Amino acid sequence: MKLNFITSNEGKFREAREIASSYGIEVAWLKMKYDEFQGDTLEEIAVKSAKALSKAIGEPFFIEDSGLFVEALNGFPGVYSSYVLKTIGNPGILKLMDGVENRKAYFEAVIAFYDGSEIHTFVGRVEGEIAEEMRGEKGFGYDPIFLYGDRTFAEMGEAKNAVSHRRRALENFLRWLSENFLS
Amino acid sequence: MKLNFITSNEGKFREAREIASSYGIEVAWLKMKYDEFQGDTLEEIAVKSAKALSKAIGEPFFIEDSGLFVEALNGFPGVYSSYVLKTIGNPGILKLMDGVENRKAYFEAVIAFYDGSEIHTFVGRVEGEIAEEMRGEKGFGYDPIFLYGDRTFAEMGEAKNAVSHRRRALENFLRWLSENFLS
Repeated sequence: MKLNFITSNEGKFREAREIASSYGIEVAWLKMKYDEFQGDTLEEIAVKSAKALSKAIGEPFFIEDSGLFVEALNGFPGVYSSYVLKTIGNPGILKLMDGVENRKAYFEAVIAFYDGSEIHTFVGRVEGEIAEEMRGEKGFGYDPIFLYGDRTFAEMGEAKNAVSHRRRALENFLRWLSENFLS
Repeated sequence: MKLNFITSNEGKFREAREIASSYGIEVAWLKMKYDEFQGDTLEEIAVKSAKALSKAIGEPFFIEDSGLFVEALNGFPGVYSSYVLKTIGNPGILKLMDGVENRKAYFEAVIAFYDGSEIHTFVGRVEGEIAEEMRGEKGFGYDPIFLYGDRTFAEMGEAKNAVSHRRRALENFLRWLSENFLS
């Protein structure tokens, strides 16, 4: 079975390909940017974007979107995590969290899969806390300020990929695919 | 001449209707929410949204979008000003600006007008500064932290409407309309 993954991000494609191979599923890279919608949740955005894409693509594909949700900031930066990273970045989040006691946060990834007629979504989450300062050299994005246990994602390196929100969303998706299409 | 304004915001509709009447133009309220796209600029977002709407609506209409752009924050909250207001709000912007010397900011409004075949855009800006604290009871959104001269927009009340970004975008649009369609 071959799955089209629409993304402009090579790192995401490689990660998905590796995880899918253990399910006997091949992932093909449809390298393209597409118009994303605004919305209140990652799921709403992914479904709208997948619907628009399905009209242009025709055959089955999946897309993925993710974000960091900080409880004390009402979910900010959330669905617009990439934009926030480009503007105020990790220093901005740390400044907003200065003196804030509740540091709970989670990463969420959502996959929207178009099966040729309908769209199905799969969610993955990893719970953690916002660190007091940036730590670690690995990873990207918010990894240096996301504490998982006593290490940040940027300190964990490869070990992060075993527990990440994206891994969890992909596993949920692939497990469902195996049960519904490969049995 | 009658112009369709697509918005779910009654305040915006009333303001546009009042300004347009001095040009002899009637504004009709197409009260509806529509799917907005993500994008790097207000203009990009407005054009994409207007294009999608034009397929559903058919006849001429305009939409409007606006945001607050803070220079020291790389333009944040910018195109996602509404989302940022709902999550970290004015206290969040003030915290991010704590100790920051360059307090320059501007409000921008963009109008996208679909004339039945093409889309035209009109921009309005007002320059100001981020106040040290929230001041004033009038207005809405970021008005309490936006200094225009020595008063915030929330302290100016009606006087704000004479200089606002939205007024300027509307004037640019209406002037262009008068020159191109009413002469």
